[in-house]
Amino acid sequence: MKLDVKDIFEKKEEFEGKEIVLEGWIRNHRKQKDFGFIDFNDGTYFTSVQVVYDNKLEDFEMIQKLKIGSAIKVVGKVIKSIGGGQEFEIETKEITLVGDCPLDYPIQPKRHTREFLREEAYLRPRTNLFNAVFRVRSVAAYAIHKYFNDNNYVYFHAPIITASDCEGAGQMFQVTTLDLEKVAKSGKVEYDKDFFGKQAALTVSGQLEGETFALAYKKIYTFGPTFRAENSNTKTHASEFWMIEPEVAFCDLEGDMDIMEDMLKYVVKYVLDNCQKEMKFFDSFVEKGLIDKLEKLINSKFTRIDHEEVISILKKADVKWEFIPEYGQDIAKEHEKYITEYFDGPVFIKNWPKDIKAFYMKQNEGGKTVAAVDLEVPGAGELMGGSQREDDYDKLITRMNEMNVPSEGLEWYLNLRRFGGCPHSGFGMGFERLIIYLTGVDNIRDVIPYPRTPKNCEY
Amino acid sequence: MKLDVKDIFEKKEEFEGKEIVLEGWIRNHRKQKDFGFIDFNDGTYFTSVQVVYDNKLEDFEMIQKLKIGSAIKVVGKVIKSIGGGQEFEIETKEITLVGDCPLDYPIQPKRHTREFLREEAYLRPRTNLFNAVFRVRSVAAYAIHKYFNDNNYVYFHAPIITASDCEGAGQMFQVTTLDLEKVAKSGKVEYDKDFFGKQAALTVSGQLEGETFALAYKKIYTFGPTFRAENSNTKTHASEFWMIEPEVAFCDLEGDMDIMEDMLKYVVKYVLDNCQKEMKFFDSFVEKGLIDKLEKLINSKFTRIDHEEVISILKKADVKWEFIPEYGQDIAKEHEKYITEYFDGPVFIKNWPKDIKAFYMKQNEGGKTVAAVDLEVPGAGELMGGSQREDDYDKLITRMNEMNVPSEGLEWYLNLRRFGGCPHSGFGMGFERLIIYLTGVDNIRDVIPYPRTPKNCEY
Repeated sequence: MKLDVKDIFEKKEEFEGKEIVLEGWIRNHRKQKDFGFIDFNDGTYFTSVQVVYDNKLEDFEMIQKLKIGSAIKVVGKVIKSIGGGQEFEIETKEITLVGDCPLDYPIQPKRHTREFLREEAYLRPRTNLFNAVFRVRSVAAYAIHKYFNDNNYVYFHAPIITASDCEGAGQMFQVTTLDLEKVAKSGKVEYDKDFFGKQAALTVSGQLEGETFALAYKKIYTFGPTFRAENSNTKTHASEFWMIEPEVAFCDLEGDMDIMEDMLKYVVKYVLDNCQKEMKFFDSFVEKGLIDKLEKLINSKFTRIDHEEVISILKKADVKWEFIPEYGQDIAKEHEKYITEYFDGPVFIKNWPKDIKAFYMKQNEGGKTVAAVDLEVPGAGELMGGSQREDDYDKLITRMNEMNVPSEGLEWYLNLRRFGGCPHSGFGMGFERLIIYLTGVDNIRDVIPYPRTPKNCEY
Repeated sequence: MKLDVKDIFEKKEEFEGKEIVLEGWIRNHRKQKDFGFIDFNDGTYFTSVQVVYDNKLEDFEMIQKLKIGSAIKVVGKVIKSIGGGQEFEIETKEITLVGDCPLDYPIQPKRHTREFLREEAYLRPRTNLFNAVFRVRSVAAYAIHKYFNDNNYVYFHAPIITASDCEGAGQMFQVTTLDLEKVAKSGKVEYDKDFFGKQAALTVSGQLEGETFALAYKKIYTFGPTFRAENSNTKTHASEFWMIEPEVAFCDLEGDMDIMEDMLKYVVKYVLDNCQKEMKFFDSFVEKGLIDKLEKLINSKFTRIDHEEVISILKKADVKWEFIPEYGQDIAKEHEKYITEYFDGPVFIKNWPKDIKAFYMKQNEGGKTVAAVDLEVPGAGELMGGSQREDDYDKLITRMNEMNVPSEGLEWYLNLRRFGGCPHSGFGMGFERLIIYLTGVDNIRDVIPYPRTPKNCEY
């Protein structure tokens, strides 16, 4: 019976004493004179299973020569482990070499730096660290889909190539089928001959399109790639990243925060429950106290506080700030950190000065602030940002004019306010930020399989 | 208690006699002298719920003026319906207008053509047809994630922007931050100044990168957008579409077909079970016999037959072909149709002539064919395509040379054959093809929220 290693770990009792077949790779190989141990991993489970063999096997000599990284097939019996360190092991009946691996194989059972592994990105999921990271990524993605599905949301595929919002958006990637050599030679750019007959670019957000579906299905979410052509080389910026953008009709800012809090707790709990080995590994080797941090989040009530009050708290604080906190201004990383420590938990900062926020956010009474919110979490800073959307047609178009957002091409967006409009809200969560928060792995390059950053587009 | 309409339909008993609050939109409004009926839909369920009100309400006159498309809030009681056509209805206690809608609102309770609705794509999910299509799309996506998650697959996010396979690939979209006007003016293209320091494009497939993860996790799948800059205006081509690409280590072509068959049956069954109203609607108004077709698929054993045998059958057939079937050649749509009718069910056509297939497919003994497979389903033609991958380093590189595929830049791909390589297989399924098959809606423009096709990139 062919099995995944995961099945054995999760149903030990069922398979004990049974003959099984496993296919996977050699992570490590310790040889004694008359017997040997193979750390066998097939990728379906974090922990390797120990495969034990001895010289009674016909192929003993061949087996002893098997190298790390090789693909093998093992026929054996699941037995209680005699040695310490594992509950069960595989007593070998037969081992077949499926695919050899040379001695210069880069992934050896020793510590490799993350920088080295970034250079060998296609092999890094074969290491404990990255195997754990990308499994958590997969499980977290599933948790997100499950959360929204179970709560009656429709999954909306926002367009990736877009012609909205193109003009003058310097941080967008242009998409074209024009032959650039010909453009250079002819001396002119003929967009009427481009694939779409006009300038097109990669989306930076599916929100505006998401609103159109929220006003049909009430509750929708996107989960797809988004792009920023920002020329910044930091630990938290990638040019291509995945984003989750829920949008909900008949929902105000308070309701929006309810969803943000509920969803985050659900996903964190789901990952803790379904990636126990991986999370223990991160807790031991990447971020001490990680599991405590996450469990505390699940059990905390998130603080909700106005931006103005936050500034007051920061101003009163006995701290020498690098950036002086100011009413009407954005807050800096040091302020985010202080405020989550001050409240000892996640903090929703809401009702931001309108001049530092986007045109589509709902203007609060008084005309100074908008119904925007950022969620700050201890140890990670901003994890999500959202807002109630301006649903008043006149206020929206006035604001667009003030901010020089052309309404041409956005008539459909404006019309959502005319055709059965309603209060509606949404938020965005960068998926990689979540994975960084969940794993403690602090460089975005290490939580995306093949990261794209300035001057870097390998694979 | 605020509810989704879906909750009431699914738990009628629980809510009967209870006072509830609903928020949503008026789909239709029939007025009598002393009472009226509102077809109320909040988007969470296909069927509208009937809201009944009479002149005992204080706001009776205001309510009678409510227009189609308006957003309203209803406070009322769930009661057994007196009239026919529905099991229950809402007895109104209070109706509040949330967002008005003008009389020239394009979506009226009458038949609109799909062409008209394509022009108003942002409003079309408010119609029965598109509401059903995009809900099925969402549910099918969830079913796919659930299937792979439940079977120990890791969800792999393949890169969207890629520098592999760029040179000379005429059907790819180029991604750039070069200012085209400046390129035209300067007369030269300086890729070293482009964002990635070289030419980059949108991915046409995540398979090659997927293989790297399959050789770490054994079972992975991608589910993300892919792109073709193909200048063809047909019902089945879009420039941006979503694709599912599973890849499995230690899996040969037979195993690949097992997965394809199992996954498809699972997804079809999941959608039939979870979108009953929508599927009945399609069966009645879009494709008569749709549900029978799908149930038959679930209960059939898919035929598996070699390409060569298919050609023999086609040659023997008493049919005047437009395209004469030939050994060693591809087959045409008319042949696909004939062969699924011949076997009265889905057919896996396998072992294709190698010269019409991709370089990475496993060469069969004899050197004439490769271990490729296409799944043909009745009424839709090709739904998936897959292959066992060439895992022999020497054969692979020889084939790449023969087909002029440069190995430069693909060293990592080749190395997968050196570092613990193993038989592995995978397939691709165009998500929109699946939705077309599931709904009977036969134009790809009608199963993607905002389709991108030549000269068309709206929203």
